[in-house]
Amino acid sequence: MDSKSKKGKSVSPLAPKSFPELPVIRGVEFASGAAGVKYKGRTDVMLARLAPGTAIAGAFTKSSTRAASVLDCQAKLAGKQDLSQGAAIIVNSGNANAFTGRNGQDSVDKVTGGVASVLSIPRSRVFSSSTGVIGEPLPADRITAIIGDLGANLSEDGAAAAANAIMTTDTFPKGAKASFKAEGGTINIVGIAKGSGMIAPDMATMLVYIFTDAMVEPGLLQRLLSKQLETTFNAITVDSDTSTSDALILAATGKSEAEPITDMRSATARAFTKALGEVMTDLAHQVVKDGEGATKFVEVNVTGAASVQDAHRVAMAIANSPLVKTAIAGEDANWGRVVMAVGKSGAQADRDRLTIRFGDMILAENGWRAPSYDEAAASAYMKQDHLVLGVDLGLGKAKRTVWTCDLTHGYIDINADYRS
Amino acid sequence: MDSKSKKGKSVSPLAPKSFPELPVIRGVEFASGAAGVKYKGRTDVMLARLAPGTAIAGAFTKSSTRAASVLDCQAKLAGKQDLSQGAAIIVNSGNANAFTGRNGQDSVDKVTGGVASVLSIPRSRVFSSSTGVIGEPLPADRITAIIGDLGANLSEDGAAAAANAIMTTDTFPKGAKASFKAEGGTINIVGIAKGSGMIAPDMATMLVYIFTDAMVEPGLLQRLLSKQLETTFNAITVDSDTSTSDALILAATGKSEAEPITDMRSATARAFTKALGEVMTDLAHQVVKDGEGATKFVEVNVTGAASVQDAHRVAMAIANSPLVKTAIAGEDANWGRVVMAVGKSGAQADRDRLTIRFGDMILAENGWRAPSYDEAAASAYMKQDHLVLGVDLGLGKAKRTVWTCDLTHGYIDINADYRS
Repeated sequence: MDSKSKKGKSVSPLAPKSFPELPVIRGVEFASGAAGVKYKGRTDVMLARLAPGTAIAGAFTKSSTRAASVLDCQAKLAGKQDLSQGAAIIVNSGNANAFTGRNGQDSVDKVTGGVASVLSIPRSRVFSSSTGVIGEPLPADRITAIIGDLGANLSEDGAAAAANAIMTTDTFPKGAKASFKAEGGTINIVGIAKGSGMIAPDMATMLVYIFTDAMVEPGLLQRLLSKQLETTFNAITVDSDTSTSDALILAATGKSEAEPITDMRSATARAFTKALGEVMTDLAHQVVKDGEGATKFVEVNVTGAASVQDAHRVAMAIANSPLVKTAIAGEDANWGRVVMAVGKSGAQADRDRLTIRFGDMILAENGWRAPSYDEAAASAYMKQDHLVLGVDLGLGKAKRTVWTCDLTHGYIDINADYRS
Repeated sequence: MDSKSKKGKSVSPLAPKSFPELPVIRGVEFASGAAGVKYKGRTDVMLARLAPGTAIAGAFTKSSTRAASVLDCQAKLAGKQDLSQGAAIIVNSGNANAFTGRNGQDSVDKVTGGVASVLSIPRSRVFSSSTGVIGEPLPADRITAIIGDLGANLSEDGAAAAANAIMTTDTFPKGAKASFKAEGGTINIVGIAKGSGMIAPDMATMLVYIFTDAMVEPGLLQRLLSKQLETTFNAITVDSDTSTSDALILAATGKSEAEPITDMRSATARAFTKALGEVMTDLAHQVVKDGEGATKFVEVNVTGAASVQDAHRVAMAIANSPLVKTAIAGEDANWGRVVMAVGKSGAQADRDRLTIRFGDMILAENGWRAPSYDEAAASAYMKQDHLVLGVDLGLGKAKRTVWTCDLTHGYIDINADYRS
């Protein structure tokens, strides 16, 4: 009931100029194909095979109505990982396998079982994601019917094709990379993602798959991942609607010649953290830039809050406010609506200590409009497609940055469409 | 910076067929005029004079960046009321006198001082509200310049004109009434309200003025008012954006021949509570029906929640979800998005215990689509302009009803307009 057809949508005006050249990650191979999950002839399944030794970490939607595949991944990651075995990730679009009752888990078992069988790995090492329509049973048989072909066509160079295969309402494929020299060798990180509408990640987001050749054991890998979530995928919102199906999987194959990462405080761990953060930030921003109907990419910086929780509340209140987002769409430097959003956030705020900046311009301070306020300059600034809104609460030291997009007719077109 | 021009907007398709015939409330007189607060020639000031003996109660926005007039009303209601004196309410549109620093309180003092002087009552008995642009100083002199004229033109029959005078982006004036026979005489209640965008009342809402001839002392009046807020003005949302300026004032003149209301448990108190609730519900619904761009009036009923707080969270998550609201605009019986909203609400929910109804039809239960699901019937239902969405969580006994409207191109048109 919630498929989103592409309908010849034009590419977001905020899309990157080109898809990055992604390095091969040794130990990872990709294949994609058309199973006809919802539409015949559409590439709707992606398979990634991971060599034995690969450690897996994940982060998933906190939605209390989360989908079957999410529950399955979480269960599999809760236990000890058998690194002697290979692993796999299988992703389908066209059907989210969400709110499908017991049928949901049965479908997951069928699909992951099919992969386990074709790749000769335990089903406990097969992670699945489904995206698309909510509430309709997953046609698992159509997926299992092509797994044999996918298994026969795996390729180390398949990351770009994989990024395309996982798209649904996206108007451009999303990829990011980082590499750095460590003791003994180079470590590479590659990430692909999908997501545009139904985006307000609360722990882990739309579909994101990150691969690295670093050697890191699962527990440490999970900690390194979790550290980066707050400032990346948990700091974006398109429309405040958190999906039932969002998932991020990070797989570390250990095939790099660099020394293993065993200690969070080592130089390699710190470099890895930084590189991973760059890849996650890049992908998170791309997801926002592909927000349904988006024409503006907006950074909201809140500083001077009494607590981090308050800083987050204020940032999200601004980023999710329909009135702020429509003003931005209209290129209106409407700081009054930002004041309103601060006020509604529930965070501690003192009107007379508030400072509001758009770009470098202070528009309001000390409880009212700034003496230096220049409407022409403010309006000119709003014409840019990357905007920075700054709010200082003047009450403490806590801060938070989140990213969002504007709210336009495009969003209504896409989402008020019958059966979209 | 946040004026909303009327721009020849058509009347909401959800507007009542006609404005009600409002009975005179003895002890209340109205006048309205054009001060030129923002636009010359537009009726933008309303004055209500209340006879000595009038008890006042109020409810105001919880916004932490609330406007000067709100702070002033709250301060005046915090102390003991001098019922030997008359009272007054003065309302202007065109400027919210919000985020105007110290100038804000000065303007309030000027305006209320002007009224106090012309009507020979203490300034502590003059309550003001301002609505419109945020962040620009209130041109108090223009308002004080016409108070003399207003004072000379007060009329008991002026409620309908007053309802018109307080409109800003409203497409229709909002009035409601209730009367009942009590021991000794009839008690009448009349209410007028304004509000369309920037609506997500968190304690008291847009501008609402309710007058009654009942005799009730201030403390009891405040308690009777507060009891009705949760199920009326705190149970509506248009766009989740809580204003800086919302205010409700309830004035009881005591001029009815009915016995005074002195005890919450008396028959008269119970009848008054019921009548007051009807007037507040009627006005709250009218505000939603005038939501910017609204074409659908939607009731969201949540039942079976583990706590009232959870029931409220779920109801508001659904009522504020852009994806649910656009689906409704598109007349799409998209219950999958309702599942998503339940999941993101943060309330306790169990996917397998959820039941979702649109009107009388069960669309989903026991964790998946209902066997009785009939897409044609569901789609036909969505064409109505009054819709009821029911969600039973199956976890407890708590329930909550809220009302909202859809999200359409009209909302974007109005709010993405430069300087609207």
